[in-house]
Amino acid sequence: MLAAIDHVGVAVEDIDGALALFRDTLGLELVHREAVSEQGVDAALLDVGDAHVELVAPLGPDTAVGRFLARRGPGLHHVAYRVPDVAAELARLADAGVRLIDERPRTGIRGSRVAFLHPSSTGGVLTEIVQPAEGH
Amino acid sequence: MLAAIDHVGVAVEDIDGALALFRDTLGLELVHREAVSEQGVDAALLDVGDAHVELVAPLGPDTAVGRFLARRGPGLHHVAYRVPDVAAELARLADAGVRLIDERPRTGIRGSRVAFLHPSSTGGVLTEIVQPAEGH
Repeated sequence: MLAAIDHVGVAVEDIDGALALFRDTLGLELVHREAVSEQGVDAALLDVGDAHVELVAPLGPDTAVGRFLARRGPGLHHVAYRVPDVAAELARLADAGVRLIDERPRTGIRGSRVAFLHPSSTGGVLTEIVQPAEGH
Repeated sequence: MLAAIDHVGVAVEDIDGALALFRDTLGLELVHREAVSEQGVDAALLDVGDAHVELVAPLGPDTAVGRFLARRGPGLHHVAYRVPDVAAELARLADAGVRLIDERPRTGIRGSRVAFLHPSSTGGVLTEIVQPAEGH
């Protein structure tokens, strides 16, 4: 069950440049920064209500976000839905025929458990499911 | 002030085909359908927590969403933030130097008041601000 929109992921060239827009102009509060080496990104979370904007900048050109930027330029990259149990939801979606990028959950930003679904079976939308760590 | 993520907009070829995915497979509840002729789209809203996924299918090829689909294919189209007063927020953003698509608010889906910001000044993200109608 998808309980909420947890965040939208936005691909940016660099985090500091993007903060001038998302924090200073749009007025969102920066609440977390982290390099997520497993995903090849430098990332920042900004609060908007109980959801977030996640800025992702590539750690190098030969990363998923680096290739995305080369192909499409900066912009909307993915949407993440909050789920109570990421392993159970991943199993449910696999049973329903959804093609997975991650066969099992892995660690995401701020200690969350996450898994990505393949856009070829989610309407062209790179889709993440996320079970936040306790307290988030 | 951006109070919440109101919805993500997803460009689709046709609403009925997309409902097989977003309603039947992902499990979101369809709560509204409407042709928004001013925006050239057939649209559907599905609930996810207190936010929505808005599916938008073009009413013809020579519409903004029709051109988007021809250029990029189906996928994430825009993000919309909920605001308490769309006219005040639009004025604030214009003062901050944000380039607007809509100089003044117009009527969006389900009686909302909306305005779009130009992606050239919002990090490549087509961005909407939305003041829902009373009761939504």
